[in-house]
Amino acid sequence: MPASEHAIVEETVELLCESHIRYTTYYGTFAHTPVLGTLEVLPLAAIGVNSSGTIDFIECCVEKGTDLRVLTCAHASVKLQIDDIDIVDVSQDDTTFFFPGFVDTHIHAPQFPNNGIFGNTTLLEWLEEYTFPLEASFTDLKFAKEVYRKVIDRTLSNGTTTASYYATIHTEATNLLADLCLQLGQRAFIGKVCMNQNSPDDYIETDEECKISTLAVIEHVKGRDPKGHFIRPILTPRFAGSCTDTLMKWLGDLRNSGDYHCQTHLSENHKEIEWIMSMFPQYKNYTDIYLKTGLLGPKTILAHCIHLSDEEMRVVASTGSGVSHCPTSNSSITSGEARVRWLIDNGINVSLGTDCSGGFSASILEVARHALLVSRHLVMKSGNEREKLSSSEVLYLATVGGAKVLQIDDSVGSFKVGLKFDAQLINLTSMDSNVDVFQFQRPQWGER
Amino acid sequence: MPASEHAIVEETVELLCESHIRYTTYYGTFAHTPVLGTLEVLPLAAIGVNSSGTIDFIECCVEKGTDLRVLTCAHASVKLQIDDIDIVDVSQDDTTFFFPGFVDTHIHAPQFPNNGIFGNTTLLEWLEEYTFPLEASFTDLKFAKEVYRKVIDRTLSNGTTTASYYATIHTEATNLLADLCLQLGQRAFIGKVCMNQNSPDDYIETDEECKISTLAVIEHVKGRDPKGHFIRPILTPRFAGSCTDTLMKWLGDLRNSGDYHCQTHLSENHKEIEWIMSMFPQYKNYTDIYLKTGLLGPKTILAHCIHLSDEEMRVVASTGSGVSHCPTSNSSITSGEARVRWLIDNGINVSLGTDCSGGFSASILEVARHALLVSRHLVMKSGNEREKLSSSEVLYLATVGGAKVLQIDDSVGSFKVGLKFDAQLINLTSMDSNVDVFQFQRPQWGER
Repeated sequence: MPASEHAIVEETVELLCESHIRYTTYYGTFAHTPVLGTLEVLPLAAIGVNSSGTIDFIECCVEKGTDLRVLTCAHASVKLQIDDIDIVDVSQDDTTFFFPGFVDTHIHAPQFPNNGIFGNTTLLEWLEEYTFPLEASFTDLKFAKEVYRKVIDRTLSNGTTTASYYATIHTEATNLLADLCLQLGQRAFIGKVCMNQNSPDDYIETDEECKISTLAVIEHVKGRDPKGHFIRPILTPRFAGSCTDTLMKWLGDLRNSGDYHCQTHLSENHKEIEWIMSMFPQYKNYTDIYLKTGLLGPKTILAHCIHLSDEEMRVVASTGSGVSHCPTSNSSITSGEARVRWLIDNGINVSLGTDCSGGFSASILEVARHALLVSRHLVMKSGNEREKLSSSEVLYLATVGGAKVLQIDDSVGSFKVGLKFDAQLINLTSMDSNVDVFQFQRPQWGER
Repeated sequence: MPASEHAIVEETVELLCESHIRYTTYYGTFAHTPVLGTLEVLPLAAIGVNSSGTIDFIECCVEKGTDLRVLTCAHASVKLQIDDIDIVDVSQDDTTFFFPGFVDTHIHAPQFPNNGIFGNTTLLEWLEEYTFPLEASFTDLKFAKEVYRKVIDRTLSNGTTTASYYATIHTEATNLLADLCLQLGQRAFIGKVCMNQNSPDDYIETDEECKISTLAVIEHVKGRDPKGHFIRPILTPRFAGSCTDTLMKWLGDLRNSGDYHCQTHLSENHKEIEWIMSMFPQYKNYTDIYLKTGLLGPKTILAHCIHLSDEEMRVVASTGSGVSHCPTSNSSITSGEARVRWLIDNGINVSLGTDCSGGFSASILEVARHALLVSRHLVMKSGNEREKLSSSEVLYLATVGGAKVLQIDDSVGSFKVGLKFDAQLINLTSMDSNVDVFQFQRPQWGER
């Protein structure tokens, strides 16, 4: 598995700098997981990327020594002069390869300073003891800036080129998060958290305040990036426990009217489920609350979905809602083991979330490892070997799976003509790599 | 949790260089887990280390600006001149601290190139498919040297100052591992693996060959380090599946006669247990095989111990044998979830093992995180909150627990007068740290 992650989002950075992107051909090894269960390696491949950052052609097995500018002229879909083309050639090092940027579909940016701090708590105590007090402090914009910069830096350095963030209830700090993502070059969904019940006195909104701040953040984000190339708003009712159904209905209507993305938590912890059903007895089950308030749909991301009944799972599937599986968090705060294979087998798109700071790691690669391990804990319990997720499957969840859940798989997640060139460059023998490569494992060693 | 590990084994490196160690006082923050469940932080502490690398005094809360040489003269148990004393002062940086070196009580050095490669196999297929073929190639000393250097470099850089290694069946390569540990400054137990049945044709010994190679490695290791300061031999019957009881009895007798350390695998996987009991029907259970062949005792390390019956657990406890818990491996190859709290509650010493390459990580810190997570998976199954291991508990297993299992807790594992100064220096804000420290979390920030 790759180790040393250095994210390059060529098009993002370039466009944000407002400089002209030149047509660029990347040459070397590319690896990706275009289909669940398949790790495809493209050795000696040349990928042409046009001036809008879109993959224009992919040529495999291009012999070393080939004139890459000439090759580019021959394969580009536009007429190019030799001098118009830049070449990035990483083929010299057989331990270096490109991999699609990771997609983190569930991360609480303000909780970042609490990473690794959860004690022996489970969800509801964890919220009260660690989470709400920290989030409440995001009225302080200087503090927000310090935290949000570090979250973005850290996730980018771990290869996350796209993240779906929960911020806090605060308009200004949430807008700041949006601006920082744009400035630092991370594709992001920006969620102003909505909470109008069962929350601390200093960290709660009225219906009216929530509506105003939600609309203000949408306006800000759309103002900054009208076409949503890099940042987009996402409606974020925290979870049914924090929101009245009146508020959720308003958000549901807003979602429908504006075709907005939406994210929330579902079926994370047994006590949470019991508590929520005692609060909403008029609904059939936890999922039904979101269904009836209009929050489900193909652009909705449901975090966790650990303890769904068959009936609930079918509702999730039929509405086309996607799931963010957060194994690090689910194990750390003892929430449970989500049945990823079962969800996938029933046609639900599944992706990965770090869920910082329920999860302690900002690295989707580490979360992918945990997804693999948790799937094995399921097998230990059920004896059903089918539940096992392989390395290539968890890497799929970390890339294409995330793109599908966010409905941006026409832009990112793999290497395909027409998609953006959204990639990280992995060097297995860099100074900070945690992988050792042996001579006998180097495919091209014999050629040296 | 600490992140960026840089191991300094002051006494080892110095002694091995055959240079004179000067009396040295270390000043800064020290953290350790002297007792299960307690993380003790010693702020502004001065630790005097004498010329044999032994901690001579510990003074806490020494004011900044104190003349540390004068302080050392006052507290040293020997008469010192000011000029005899070196000072290592790391107190300037409040994100830097000393932590005891990690102890890895179960690691297969030759399997290192296979880290992360296990597919969907479980133990017995994993041995056949991945492990035996790689180990068999250690007749090639050039290859052995490449692998063993990298194992030692990698584990040291992850803070492992003591490791209990399984090598292969080969005398020369095993001797080389011993020499490299000595040369690179890692405290190590060197185990020539014994296998005289159920093994591939090119990777098996006869009784006689095994006895000769076992004695040859013991002689070599003792010749290199007669007092066992840094390296010691450890008897290593691979597991009952690979050894006849005649061979195990010979090893048991040798163990008793020479008071040797001994290591093997016990109760890792259901199929393994079934297979072994079909092979040894004359014994009551798996543990009974090791008991009756004389392999159990206070210097014996039993890896895994996942599926022990109450009766077997009591035999392990009564013989004083220690356990190496290998959560990364146990989850990766779907072996099971060891009940660590149950073992500890019954008076058994428990430690951590990376078990590379059943486990994919050479970092005991990562294994400690997995131990914490696996304990939560047990809680998900049993509902028994007591099974949860806390951060400080898994750090105890990684240090003092390992030292106790290896019966070297009179030398390493914590900071105490009379123990060796065996430490790693952690810097949470170093370039390669994976931890972010925020201004409000810096205890001494107000003073700046």
